[in-house]
Amino acid sequence: MSTRIGRFALQTGAVSYAELEEGSAWLLDGAPWLLGRRTGERLDGIDDQGQGNPAAQLLAPVAPSKIVCIGRNYRAHAAELGNPMPSEPLLFLKPPSTLVGPGGVIELPPPDLSSRIEHEVELGVVVGSRIRNVDEATAAKAIYGYTVVGDITARDLQRSDKTWTRGKGFDTFCPVGPVVVAGIDTAKLAVRCTVSDELRQNGTTADMHFRPPALLAYISRVMTLEPGDLVATGTPAGVGPLVDGDRLTMEIEGLGTLHLTVAMPQT
Amino acid sequence: MSTRIGRFALQTGAVSYAELEEGSAWLLDGAPWLLGRRTGERLDGIDDQGQGNPAAQLLAPVAPSKIVCIGRNYRAHAAELGNPMPSEPLLFLKPPSTLVGPGGVIELPPPDLSSRIEHEVELGVVVGSRIRNVDEATAAKAIYGYTVVGDITARDLQRSDKTWTRGKGFDTFCPVGPVVVAGIDTAKLAVRCTVSDELRQNGTTADMHFRPPALLAYISRVMTLEPGDLVATGTPAGVGPLVDGDRLTMEIEGLGTLHLTVAMPQT
Repeated sequence: MSTRIGRFALQTGAVSYAELEEGSAWLLDGAPWLLGRRTGERLDGIDDQGQGNPAAQLLAPVAPSKIVCIGRNYRAHAAELGNPMPSEPLLFLKPPSTLVGPGGVIELPPPDLSSRIEHEVELGVVVGSRIRNVDEATAAKAIYGYTVVGDITARDLQRSDKTWTRGKGFDTFCPVGPVVVAGIDTAKLAVRCTVSDELRQNGTTADMHFRPPALLAYISRVMTLEPGDLVATGTPAGVGPLVDGDRLTMEIEGLGTLHLTVAMPQT
Repeated sequence: MSTRIGRFALQTGAVSYAELEEGSAWLLDGAPWLLGRRTGERLDGIDDQGQGNPAAQLLAPVAPSKIVCIGRNYRAHAAELGNPMPSEPLLFLKPPSTLVGPGGVIELPPPDLSSRIEHEVELGVVVGSRIRNVDEATAAKAIYGYTVVGDITARDLQRSDKTWTRGKGFDTFCPVGPVVVAGIDTAKLAVRCTVSDELRQNGTTADMHFRPPALLAYISRVMTLEPGDLVATGTPAGVGPLVDGDRLTMEIEGLGTLHLTVAMPQT
């Protein structure tokens, strides 16, 4: 039995996590990974992707202290970019300023900085409890649930810069959602990305090289993972360009679909 | 006239920012870069480095949403590691889990992961207001103040990994403090690091290549900087190893001295 968690901006101005159940969102008094409990208050007319009630705007379902990402975790994707598979997980960070929620806009960087923005759809892991230097079995127990993450990338800057900070770090380069799902088996889930109705990525989590418990254990040897932290587990093959006006969907079987648009920023 | 800000863990369990003035710490109802104001409550017997009152434990003076660091911003340091000076600022991130406060312990990574940990003392810039895609003049006005930052580095992992995430990202690899100082001219301040009484780094901010306003403007073209965010501006020459038992001081003229120790973590 899976649990689905959304995060909403309410008409009162408050932001609240909620548990989605049979058309309702039961508000929580905190993040579920910080032991938030139901307040008894309920929003109706909400589907299992957190949509349907105009009075409750769905936000990115996490507010992580850090976003840790994994490069080259699917063999076919490493190959399509001409890279070898790493022998250990390849870690990088996205700043929290990259987060954007369901229905959001991916803003293209200024054209003089980058002319090649690409989509990467990924299984996201939401950390449930603090872990530091733990083994895989402990890491597995520290997983709260899963969500869909877009690791949007300025490929030209990723290639030209010594570090990946600019290439991976522009505002809106980390769409997340629509919800967090706990209690789901992620061994073999379809992972898809469409750009303006063209199917670009069509993979399966079965092709991941390092699995989530191994990734969390590896990261935890370097840095403490906090409840609510987000780990993006790498993308399958099929990455490609995004341009102004594109409509983007990122979908993982059982987790839902992120709908996004691509635009030049308002100046 | 400069303002000195400390952040304290109080005996009540609360954490509070405070303005330091003539032996007292005037508690604030929030971070000063979020318009925190004096509550009227005062702690006495506190020097201008935030020390002296055992009832108020000095913490890292910032709680940033992100820590953005600059590589190779002093010519002599780039040269000592055999690197060219970059034509643009070289950005990387440290996760918030790296933060440690005055008097803290730099914990050495497990020896099977890294055997070469080095000190880098840096001028830290504390962001005062939200900026996105601004020019240098606007960036200059968005600086709240300055502090001392240690960019502790696992040099072997920085060299061997494709990204700098592990090399720069271990817990306790970002000591900060003792206080944040606003209203100080940072054009030419002595920057020093000693290891167990040996002077290792002895530079001046006058040798910085890109100045803080240029750095903040550059970063703001990529990612929105939030009030309280921390930017570490690169280290002068003289970096070297840290080993178990070392006593470390990092000092910038007018900002104060961070005292730290180096140890293997408790297992």
